[in-house]
Amino acid sequence: MAYVGKYFDQAPYRVYCLVGDGEAAEGSIWESLHFASHYKLDNLVVIFDVNRLGQSEPTSLQHHVEVYDARLKSFGFHSLVVDGHDVTELVKAFDEAATVSGKPTALVAKTFKGKGFPGIEDLENWHGKALGADGEKVIKHLQSQIKNNTISLKPKPPLAEAPRVHIGDITLSSPPAYKQGEQVATRLAYGTALKKIADTNLRVIALDGDTKNSTFSDKLRNAYPDRYIECFIAEQNLVGVATGAACRDRTVAFVSTFAAFFSRTFDQIRMGAISQSNINLAGSHCGVSIGEDGPSQMGLEDLALFRAVPTATVFYPSDAVSTERAVELAANTKGICYIRTSRPNTSMLYPNDEVFKVGQAKVVRQSPKDQVLLIGAGITLHESVAAAEALKAEGINARVLDPFTIKPLDEAAVLANARACGGRVVVVEDHYQAGGIGEAVLSAVALQRDVVVKHVFVTEVPRSGPPAALLDKYGLSAPHIASAARAVLKA
Amino acid sequence: MAYVGKYFDQAPYRVYCLVGDGEAAEGSIWESLHFASHYKLDNLVVIFDVNRLGQSEPTSLQHHVEVYDARLKSFGFHSLVVDGHDVTELVKAFDEAATVSGKPTALVAKTFKGKGFPGIEDLENWHGKALGADGEKVIKHLQSQIKNNTISLKPKPPLAEAPRVHIGDITLSSPPAYKQGEQVATRLAYGTALKKIADTNLRVIALDGDTKNSTFSDKLRNAYPDRYIECFIAEQNLVGVATGAACRDRTVAFVSTFAAFFSRTFDQIRMGAISQSNINLAGSHCGVSIGEDGPSQMGLEDLALFRAVPTATVFYPSDAVSTERAVELAANTKGICYIRTSRPNTSMLYPNDEVFKVGQAKVVRQSPKDQVLLIGAGITLHESVAAAEALKAEGINARVLDPFTIKPLDEAAVLANARACGGRVVVVEDHYQAGGIGEAVLSAVALQRDVVVKHVFVTEVPRSGPPAALLDKYGLSAPHIASAARAVLKA
Repeated sequence: MAYVGKYFDQAPYRVYCLVGDGEAAEGSIWESLHFASHYKLDNLVVIFDVNRLGQSEPTSLQHHVEVYDARLKSFGFHSLVVDGHDVTELVKAFDEAATVSGKPTALVAKTFKGKGFPGIEDLENWHGKALGADGEKVIKHLQSQIKNNTISLKPKPPLAEAPRVHIGDITLSSPPAYKQGEQVATRLAYGTALKKIADTNLRVIALDGDTKNSTFSDKLRNAYPDRYIECFIAEQNLVGVATGAACRDRTVAFVSTFAAFFSRTFDQIRMGAISQSNINLAGSHCGVSIGEDGPSQMGLEDLALFRAVPTATVFYPSDAVSTERAVELAANTKGICYIRTSRPNTSMLYPNDEVFKVGQAKVVRQSPKDQVLLIGAGITLHESVAAAEALKAEGINARVLDPFTIKPLDEAAVLANARACGGRVVVVEDHYQAGGIGEAVLSAVALQRDVVVKHVFVTEVPRSGPPAALLDKYGLSAPHIASAARAVLKA
Repeated sequence: MAYVGKYFDQAPYRVYCLVGDGEAAEGSIWESLHFASHYKLDNLVVIFDVNRLGQSEPTSLQHHVEVYDARLKSFGFHSLVVDGHDVTELVKAFDEAATVSGKPTALVAKTFKGKGFPGIEDLENWHGKALGADGEKVIKHLQSQIKNNTISLKPKPPLAEAPRVHIGDITLSSPPAYKQGEQVATRLAYGTALKKIADTNLRVIALDGDTKNSTFSDKLRNAYPDRYIECFIAEQNLVGVATGAACRDRTVAFVSTFAAFFSRTFDQIRMGAISQSNINLAGSHCGVSIGEDGPSQMGLEDLALFRAVPTATVFYPSDAVSTERAVELAANTKGICYIRTSRPNTSMLYPNDEVFKVGQAKVVRQSPKDQVLLIGAGITLHESVAAAEALKAEGINARVLDPFTIKPLDEAAVLANARACGGRVVVVEDHYQAGGIGEAVLSAVALQRDVVVKHVFVTEVPRSGPPAALLDKYGLSAPHIASAARAVLKA
């Protein structure tokens, strides 16, 4: 929010953030503090409420406000130690903060939990507890201490309004323009589309965690450097900054990093959903198809994570054309949008003028006599098409479905096409079993007796190797899909 | 590892940790640094390799080693700035570190990426790239710079061995001892069992993030304070410390916090699986049944997360007896074990001498004429039993199954009991749809045409309220389960 105020809105509003001393142990706090000083957010005041007591015992730093102060100064803050119960001192500190230029301010406020509550102040075992029978007594005691209770405070009106912005009706500046037969990675198409929607709306911004030359968010940065926020290798803060930037509809924020690295920031995403946040997250380098970089870099759980977010829309485009449209749709979709992109180059499946909708699947191959439905996405959709081609040589007709969005899944299309293929379905995905496309399809057909599903997925922690070798080793290549189809024909 | 060396092994070995300057932006690093100084881990040396360059651009602090130095000092480290290419200076620094008492040491090593590679040193755009045609030339250049290449280094043998420990065959010191009709929360039984296995093996340890009076890990701490590690509110480091403590089979580590908070540390868990880590994680306060604390505290995605870990075993015990056995089994099970516990008190389902196994479900209610199978766990298993009782009054016989472990799921029991009930199944869980028990059951019956599953789950971000009111509002209470059973009878 402070970054938006200073750099995008360029308005004089100031941002205040309250941090408990218990939570000050979270590393995400220190990621944010570093970010705030690196970008010289002098419109930000962070108040540390140092009340000494955690839930189950005193905090590790207790009332050592001098340690907080030294750490905050080393992290680039103008830091002031104050008595958090002294209103005059607090007002002075806030006034001082407003005069500081080029760095954010921190108030390290020494406080006492339950201040002024007789028999409770500064004692353990009161965390999250109601006062019960003591309540009436404490309220009376506090009321007796109020001085000057006739003073009425009149807040000044704001000095200036933030600029009005419009963040709806976002479109690509030009439609997808690929040649049939061209091979383009969906991660690259993501960058292309991001730049195109930034062309048409000044409030489209991109954020990345030092992977912009792999996720291709650098395409936006190259065109509009002022609308790109480098968050370095601190993914919790990366999502946090996007959440702040998107709130109050000030920006349309697109966050990119490797799909695997969103596992590091799932609490921020979960809390974003609770807070009705509208942010767009793009995870590149999904699955074993990334190849040699190895399992630490392979996103194999990201669909499970994002499907478990109630407010999420999950896009999994399989070619460059649909990726561009996924970006455009995400920009106009409320809630948390996730776009899963792939590392390898893949061929076009759709003409440049194909129309895509959230929750609308596409049949990419069919015949009137199909016996089995293959469902894949990304690299496994292309492998499924190859498998269908191989099966045709054996006289087996396979239909191939591209779900486009995994959440919401086009349940009607899944069911109709499954039934058209005798209720025989193979789902193949570059992801672990739990929570991915296979289980989404199973949920869609849970109450149907006439549909069976053979699910092909990554069954163990993978190794490093060339992409094609890994796809084959972990059972996701066309020959394995064809085998699964043959097996399900006997089911 | 350093904590174990100093406090459990009490051996003179030292621990060295290498941190890249890019990753030094991760908050988890600062959680760990704080932990190391708080616990005075003077057997630890952390080397920061400050080579200035990230993947896509220079790091935010570039070669400002004085900033790293100030931050490390403020975080309680003995910090030394060194030339990372000067072997003599490094040896001196390591020697100095070994003399420092009461605090860990950090070496801030100023380095250059590609040092000595002509035309590459200190330049961008070489991250993760092979040298290609330049390789031969660079190798020759480096070889030409080697001096004294006849010196052979003879490492000294270790001064002392770490004590031998035995971490197998762990048992409860006494069997579960509950009265039938007694109401005990599974989170409380977790604490009871943790203390009991600690009675019989000195290497059982507990770790928590300032929730020990809610997760009941304080039962171990009260009995064996030296074997409890308080990690404060820093969950990434909490799991990291456990991973370090458990490696090389030095301890049997049990980590507890609220189930929701493991979402904050999923990358550490994911990487733990890749590293073949053996740790036990217990998540309390799952689902809407926690009540008034609200959605930020409700674990509603944890089963999806842990089911997506290839090396995981997921326990979801439904009464105190099975919880004690889950803890005992987890202590003896390799890989990442997760135990999901609940906040509310629940009655006993099993006699104290019931035997439990990983992957073995229990039928808790059945008749020869069952028409529908109800599958629940934790609070929803108790609601399922109540629903079965209500259905009986209408002449509908419902069987009730307790999966006990969600991963591996007892697929044979699910299938056999589903078939015995006409292939009609209701799964009800205090969790979101994606990746939970319902989808695990659907995966188990994916290839069966004769089984249908009605899945009842939390469909939106919940609100705060009394537990019973929330169970009813979100459709998990016995009347809703009975309705689902009636609906599936018509399917």
